[in-house]
Parts: sequence; C-alpha cells; structure tokens
Amino acid sequence: MKYGIVIFPSKEIQDEANALRKRYDPRYAHIPPHITLKSAFEMDIPLRDTLVTEIKKIANETKPFTININKVSSFAPVTKTIYFKVEPIPELSELHEKLHTGKFPLDREHAFVPHITIAQDLVEDEYSDVYGSLRMKKVELEDTVDRIQLCYQLENETWTVYETFVFGEEIV
Amino acid sequence: MKYGIVIFPSKEIQDEANALRKRYDPRYAHIPPHITLKSAFEMDIPLRDTLVTEIKKIANETKPFTININKVSSFAPVTKTIYFKVEPIPELSELHEKLHTGKFPLDREHAFVPHITIAQDLVEDEYSDVYGSLRMKKVELEDTVDRIQLCYQLENETWTVYETFVFGEEIV
Repeated sequence: MKYGIVIFPSKEIQDEANALRKRYDPRYAHIPPHITLKSAFEMDIPLRDTLVTEIKKIANETKPFTININKVSSFAPVTKTIYFKVEPIPELSELHEKLHTGKFPLDREHAFVPHITIAQDLVEDEYSDVYGSLRMKKVELEDTVDRIQLCYQLENETWTVYETFVFGEEIV
Repeated sequence: MKYGIVIFPSKEIQDEANALRKRYDPRYAHIPPHITLKSAFEMDIPLRDTLVTEIKKIANETKPFTININKVSSFAPVTKTIYFKVEPIPELSELHEKLHTGKFPLDREHAFVPHITIAQDLVEDEYSDVYGSLRMKKVELEDTVDRIQLCYQLENETWTVYETFVFGEEIV
C-alpha cells in the first residue's frame, strides 16, 4: 500500500488553495491542500506499525511551529507546478530529515521545498497565463502547525488519513 | 466550523465502495467512503478542544471490533440513498450513543443505521435501475475497526481529518 506523510494547514489556507486548485489542479479531488513531508512510498503493515511508533517519537519531540506563506512560486522548468511557497524554516526541514533517516525509507524524489500545490499539469500557454497572473498575487497566510498526518492511497488515487500525530501528545 | 465523526473502513472496503460511488454518488469526491458516527455539527475551537478530550476517553474505553457488510440496502422512500449495510452491533451503537450524550451536541438527524453510502441524489428511474441491480449483488466484507476520525468541512464541502483517535492509545 502507498503511504505519504503530510501537514494539512488551517482551513483558511486550504480554502484559499482550493479556490485556485479547483480551476488549475486536475488532482484537486485526490487530497485536501497539504504540505508533503514524505512523498508516496510503499509500505507493508509490519513496516507501517514500526514507522507509526517512529512518527509518534518524532511528534513527541516536535513543538508546534508557525508557518508563513508569502508568495506564489513555480517549479518550472522542472515541472509546470505552481504553488504557495511555505517559507523554509528549520522545524520543517528537521521534520523532513527525520522522516528520511533511520527506519524510514530513505529515497527522496526532490530536494525539500515546502509548498502547497495550487496548479499542475497545465499546457504551456495556460501555464504562462496562470503563473503570470498568480505570481503577482499578494499572499499573506500564517498558521500554527501542531500535527502531521500519515495517509494511504486508494485505487482511485485519493488519499485517506490513517493516523494523525499530534505534537507532544502521543503514547509510544 | 462544521465537524463530523466517522470511521474509515479498510482500503479494500473503500475501494469496493468507490467503484460504485464513482458512478452513482455526486458527492464522491467530498470524503472517502466512511461510516458516519456523528453527522455534521457546528463547533467552535473551545468546544472542539473539550470534545477532543472526550473522544480520547471514549477511544480509550473502546476495544477494536469487527464489522461485517453483507448486503446493499436503501433508505427509500425517505431518501434515494443506496448503501452498504453495516451489520448493527453493540460496539457501533455504543460509540454512537457516547458521541450524542454529555458534552456532545445531542441532536441526531436520523435513527442510527450504520452504513457506507454508495449512491445518492439519483433521479427516480436511475435509482430503480441501480438499486434493482445492486440489491442482488453478493457482498461479503469484513474489517477490524480500531480508530475513529474527527473531520472538518472546507468551503468546497470536502472534509479533512483533524484528528484520529486510536482505541486504547490516547493520552488524556
């Protein structure tokens, strides 16, 4: 089964992202707006149970932290993904690091750039129009992150939450 | 903010339900297949924090239990909803009861009939065709439930998980 580890930002940020995703992200219905900490990886049940304990430890070591979103950016030319740029902070990169060491599968597709996708899979000229207008958009969003979520993927490519890990509140 | 409390059954059951929801449930993309324990209710953050503690207590008092789905049924003539009928068991009704007493909002829209919706909002003749064929469908699904999920609704009517409550594993 495929799993992923994400942060779901506040409702306010999700609503702001969805207003754009609805128009520009064909995978809009697969999962709510999120910050990916660990991209999709295969895991069987024994490894899942092992990693749930590891994620609990990580959650217990982590203090709630504030994230800021101040602009729209893009991964072009690598991909035509447009996203809310989450200001990089040590807490995010530490979480990312911990989820890619020790008992966790180590492979990482890309360097870690914390973001919330708002547009993807656009054709060239649509991409230029959309990004041209969105990059001028004034964005000022802030949120306190106090939990992370382990999700698994269904056959129809949507994601369901398996477990939430609240910082400082997990029984190991 | 609107919240709801649900059980997400196994991936196998969700995939089986989605294969039908995709064709017959216009709200298919709003939330993965689920058993509703507490329908949508309004809650502010202070009440949410109070009820999170209450749900943790309930989760800690609850032992994992087995659910069985053996047929497709319908709420007609009340509504044209078609669903996987989850065999009623004391553990489910006890959970439902506990989530509608004490500090929880007490209002209940309907009698508690544990189910997983697979079709809704169909027009009359489509409903008759679909239900006519699905009620003959052999269904034999079983799952062990060991957690419940508190979800909140976004502006686009999709639901995001706020917190998972694993039976016997919550710090209160």
